[in-house]
Parts: sequence; C-alpha cells; structure tokens
Amino acid sequence: MADILSKFSKYADNAIEEENPTVRAMERAGKRIVKLNIGDPARFFPTPKYMVEAYVRALREGKTTYVNPEGIPELREAISARYRRLYKVSASPEDSVFITHGVSEALIFLNSMLVDPGNMAVIFKPYYAVCYSGFRIFGGVPILQEYDEERGWYLDTDALERRIQAAKRAGGRVKYMMVTNPSNPTGMVLDRKTLRSIVEIAKDNGIVLISDEIYDEVVYNGATFTSASQLAKGVPHIIFNGASKDLDATGFRIGFTIIPGEDKVSMALKKTVLDFCALRLCVSTPAQYAVAEGISNRKEHRKEVSAFVRAVEDRADFASRLINESEYMHVVPPRGAYYLFPKLDAKRLRLKTDREFVHKLLEEEGVLLTRGSGFGGDGHVRLVALPPKEILGSAIDRIDRFCRRHSR
Amino acid sequence: MADILSKFSKYADNAIEEENPTVRAMERAGKRIVKLNIGDPARFFPTPKYMVEAYVRALREGKTTYVNPEGIPELREAISARYRRLYKVSASPEDSVFITHGVSEALIFLNSMLVDPGNMAVIFKPYYAVCYSGFRIFGGVPILQEYDEERGWYLDTDALERRIQAAKRAGGRVKYMMVTNPSNPTGMVLDRKTLRSIVEIAKDNGIVLISDEIYDEVVYNGATFTSASQLAKGVPHIIFNGASKDLDATGFRIGFTIIPGEDKVSMALKKTVLDFCALRLCVSTPAQYAVAEGISNRKEHRKEVSAFVRAVEDRADFASRLINESEYMHVVPPRGAYYLFPKLDAKRLRLKTDREFVHKLLEEEGVLLTRGSGFGGDGHVRLVALPPKEILGSAIDRIDRFCRRHSR
Repeated sequence: MADILSKFSKYADNAIEEENPTVRAMERAGKRIVKLNIGDPARFFPTPKYMVEAYVRALREGKTTYVNPEGIPELREAISARYRRLYKVSASPEDSVFITHGVSEALIFLNSMLVDPGNMAVIFKPYYAVCYSGFRIFGGVPILQEYDEERGWYLDTDALERRIQAAKRAGGRVKYMMVTNPSNPTGMVLDRKTLRSIVEIAKDNGIVLISDEIYDEVVYNGATFTSASQLAKGVPHIIFNGASKDLDATGFRIGFTIIPGEDKVSMALKKTVLDFCALRLCVSTPAQYAVAEGISNRKEHRKEVSAFVRAVEDRADFASRLINESEYMHVVPPRGAYYLFPKLDAKRLRLKTDREFVHKLLEEEGVLLTRGSGFGGDGHVRLVALPPKEILGSAIDRIDRFCRRHSR
Repeated sequence: MADILSKFSKYADNAIEEENPTVRAMERAGKRIVKLNIGDPARFFPTPKYMVEAYVRALREGKTTYVNPEGIPELREAISARYRRLYKVSASPEDSVFITHGVSEALIFLNSMLVDPGNMAVIFKPYYAVCYSGFRIFGGVPILQEYDEERGWYLDTDALERRIQAAKRAGGRVKYMMVTNPSNPTGMVLDRKTLRSIVEIAKDNGIVLISDEIYDEVVYNGATFTSASQLAKGVPHIIFNGASKDLDATGFRIGFTIIPGEDKVSMALKKTVLDFCALRLCVSTPAQYAVAEGISNRKEHRKEVSAFVRAVEDRADFASRLINESEYMHVVPPRGAYYLFPKLDAKRLRLKTDREFVHKLLEEEGVLLTRGSGFGGDGHVRLVALPPKEILGSAIDRIDRFCRRHSR
C-alpha cells in the first residue's frame, strides 16, 4: 500500500501555508510571530459592518438551507450588474455567473474540466502558487512564461507566441492561458496593450483565456485596471473574482466564475461548470446573501474600498521604500494587490535558497514571509503590505538585520 | 476547440439537481412544486437557534479572516471528542481531523489524492450519486457491488471478496472501498457483522476503507449504528461526517474528514489531505465556530436531534406504508437517514425508464423526485421523507394517480 497515493498528488503544495507547523510550535512556546505570509485584509481592516449585518440577517431569516448549485439569483445578478457597470460586459446572471467556494474551488473545476494528464497551459511566472499546483495535480504540463523583472515585470508577448508555437509543433495540446491581474505576487497591473496581445494569442491558437481578477479594485500608484472581459469579446474566456479581496471578506469563502461568451466553447464551459457545481450541492447560503449586499450596496462599498486602497497604497509604498533602502533586497513597487516581491541579493547572502531564508528568518526573528520559489520566483520572498506601518517597519528592520547577520 | 473538455468531465453528473431547469421554468410560470428530491432537513426543521446565534456571535466578534487550512482547533477538538465519546475512537484533533467544504469537497480530495486514471474502487450499489461521479471524473473504474433489495439491502460479503480477487487477477489496482452508512438512498443501516467483514476484506486486500457516516445520528426503527472506526483499528480508513445532517445545517457547508490511524498509510493520507486543504486556504470561518458550538453544546444538540429523529421515523414510516399500499411501487422501509427508495413495478407501467418517470411526474403532477438510476438503482425513484405528513401523503397520492394514468 506504500504507493497508494496518486501520481500527481505530490504537487498539492502551497508555500504560503508550509511553515504553519513551525509557527504553531513557536506560538505554543510563547513566541509572537509577525505574519506577513498570507494576504488576509480582514486581519487588519475589519470586514465591513454592513456586510456582517447582512450576513446576520440572512442567518436569522433562516437562510441556512441548500440553495442552487450555481448560487442564489441575488448574488449572480449583483455580480452581473457589477461587470456591466465597471467593464461594460454583458454576462447573463442566469447562465454565465457561478458561485464557488472561493476562487480556489473554481481552480479545481477549471482543471478538472479541461485538463487531461499531459495537456499544457500557459502560466505566467511568477504565478499565484495555487494556479500552478492546481494545474499540476491534474497532470498538467505548464508552459511557464516569465515576466521580466528588470523591465518592471514586463511581458514579452512575441516570446509568448513563439513558446506556444514551439509547444504545438512538439505535439502539445495547450488548453488554457492564465493571467492573475493585478498580479499576486508581484503587484504588477497588466497594461491594456499587453492584455490585448494576450487575447489575440489566445484567439489565434484556440486557447481558453483565464483571467483571475480578484484584486481588480485594489489598484493604485496611477495604474488602471483592464478586465480581460473588456477585450476578449468573441474569444472564449473565463473570469475569476470573489469577495475575499475587494470586499475584505476572506473568511466567507465566496468566489465568482464568469463566462460571458455565447460561442460554442463558452457554452460548453458553462454547462460543465454547472455540472461541477451540482456535484457539491451549493456554497455557503448565508454568506452568499452577505456578499450580494456587499456588492449591491455601492455607497457603503465605495466608502470602504476607497479607504482601504488608500491605506494599502500608503503601506505598500512605505514598505517598498524601506526594502529598497536595504543593501540585500530590491523590489519593484507594486501598483495593485498588496504584495511585495523583493529579490534577495544572492551574492551578498550566505543562505542557499529562499526556502532556507524564510525558515531561518522565522526561527531567528519571528517574521514569517513566503518563499518566492513557491510562486515560481526563486531567490525572492513575498511579503504582505497590509499591517500598519509600525509593524511593517519593524519587520523589515528585522529582515535587514537578519540579512546582515547572514551576509558574506 | 470543440474537444476542449477533459476526457472524464462528462461524468460530472448529479441526478439530484438535473431537473432544476424544468423546475425553474415551471415556477416562473406560477406552478408550485413539491420538492422531494433533495435531502435538506433545514427546509422543514429550522437550523437550531443555538447554532445560528453562535454563528452570529462569531461574525460580530470578527471571525471573518482566513483560519488554518485544516480547520479551527475548537471545531477539530469538538469532533475528536465526539468520536471518542460515541465510538471510543482516538483521533488526535491536531493531526487527524480536517474540516472541508462539506463532504463533497472531501470526496474531491479523496479521489484526487488516490486515483490515477484506470485505478479501481469498490462502490456499493445503490450509491450516493456523488460518490460515483466524484470517482469517475478522476478516471476511476468502479467495481459496483450490489446490495440485495430482496433481502432488505443485504450485502453478500463473500461475493464482494470474489469480485475483488477477480479484479486483482485481471491486473486492477483497487485503491479504496466506500460505504455510506446509514445509506443514502436506501436508508439501510449496516449491521456490525457485515461491517466487520468489509473491514477484514479491506485489510486483507490492502484497500483503504472509506466510511461516509454523515447520517450517523439519524437511525431509528430499532437500528443500531456502528462506525467503521470502531472496527477498523489498525486498518487504514477515512471517516466522513459533517454538520449538514445530524446538526441540520446544510447551508453552512461544513464537512469533517477523520483519519484516526497511526500506520504508514494513514500517516501518508493525513499529510496529503492537509496539503490539499492548504491549496484552498480555509473553510468558512464563522460557520466553523457555529458548528463547534453545535457539537459541544450537547444538551441543546440532544434535545434537537432526538425530536428530529422521532419526526423522521414517523414520517418515513408513514410514507413507506402509503407507498406499499400502492400497486405500482414497493419500498423497504428505511432505518436510517431520511430517504425512501421504492422500486417501480416495470411490468405495470408504460414508462420506459425511471428518468422518464421522474420528468413526466414533475411536469404532470408537480412532484419532484430523483431518478434511481442516478444512484445506480435503475427502475427506482428516491424521495425524501422530511416534509410533514400531509405533504408527503398528498405527494404519494399524486404519484399513485400518475402511475395509474401510465399503467398498462
């Protein structure tokens, strides 16, 4: 029975959570850990009260039964209206919007419905850890196309086109191409021209475009967000979004999948997502009502999100500045989401890998980051710019002190 | 792009939900439907107030952040204590109990971590629809071992042993064997002797035993429930349970996975379930607190569940009697869960399949059942015995009237 596990289960790996056992042991021993590993806004900015109260109302009104597998109409309508208003996208609430247990479940559905072992997908690198693992546990073979850090995480779309052509010539079947925009972990926001080229490449090569837009309202420093759905009309594509980030409700576990197209492939995707939804009956019923209110109550939402984004900008800029003052790290300041992805100066440090860096930093300084290799960015670390500046400042001081101690 | 879908996505199929489009169209046209298709106790017995209020408290206390992937300690401890108290099972809350988005997600983890295309699993038939589909979407090849309806859904364990031997001789790799006990859809409760034989067969053949025990407190008519964990000490096994049925909180979407063993295989399973949990960050945070209270407040729970089980027994017996008075159907009265799985008298009916039966019954009488073939029980229908007797009585009258109209 030793080989009981499936061939690809070894890819079930999320670097963000991997230091949990060490953290727990340290906490049991009375140590305090500064956790900059997980992008959880609700830890520092309480989930808006108007959503919490909508949740309470739903519970007390008995909204605790099963509901439709694809989600309650109220929430699907709110999401459809939001994409129409913000991005002029027409996605029918009746058959083009699906509610999932976070975007995480949407990733399982995506890979289960599209990927046979050996199939390929383009994943841009650095990637969100679970986009990669979620593909590999289904036996997918990734084409990892790199963003160029030297050029501010620039994407060379000509090189992308060549990679896809080469993969196809070698007999590869490329099923989808996935962007996370704004990017986790780099904080880069894709410009319209690059996104347009990506859409063209998807179209020309018969590849489904997947756009994870869960940070779409968290943009700053002059960046403008463009939804893939604005440019991909007529090209089969799937949009992921959710309540965790823009709405600051991570613990609700509500994700959205939107498939606006009416073409044959989009129709097949819609039917199949619905079939997968039916397999797990439904998503948290009261939470769906809370999120419907979260989106529909635009006045409250605007107030909350604008204060939140201003604070994130302030903290991310502050942390970027401090990091770039250190001799041992350099970061491209983010313009979206709330992560910093600095590069460690390998020549100046005596630590062999970013994994070792993260583990020792935790043990020695009680500061928890995530290793960059977990995002396909070896030699980097990811930190979350959500805590107040005094916490961020002191953490970065400790990181710098740690680097000095381990420098050559 | 026509063949964009994965090879096995066609198996994503849940008969319970398949009439939804017709139902919605009928409801839009002003028709009232009696829904006996889905096992949702919260529709007829409100989710207990003490749990709803614990949920509200959690929300207002700001329990809306991400928490541990495997679940909050309070809930894992409550589950561990419950299995110790009821079944004398020692399962460490620290590393043997995992919280999932319902048992549905646990089924995805199970199949993803154990099944390579072509691997086999024993699934007893009739089965819970998703146990079958969830295995097949990962390319699994089922060994369907039948319960004998004529003998009150008796399981012939000698025949089971022979089937497994034959599969192994033919080169098959049998990864797991799954029982749903009490059974959905038949309401049968496995006796201790049969369960013991199943455990022995799992042990002798190096097969992981999976026991879905989500209805473990819903037993009646003199049946005694035995948990697989009571008999499988030393044999690698996984227990599924959750808040939906015993605790009457379907819309909370909280499932439990318990892996009590300390053997090598169990340790590998625990590590892998934890890795899969980490891929989706966590399960609804406030709901976990509500369910922890749901289990821990034994006084309130006992009061609720005993009233509930008495009502279920009364309704299931009533419905069984009515069905057995009809000339067109026969049912083995259930002793657990809350489903009736009558056999239709094919010789007397002019309808070709149970699918046609269910669809026409819905259209003509506004009564929604689930086709038995969705559970591997062709020629049967499943109905839920949860509504009050006047609703059940009138629905069964309409079913009988429908049969008469379509009899030969």
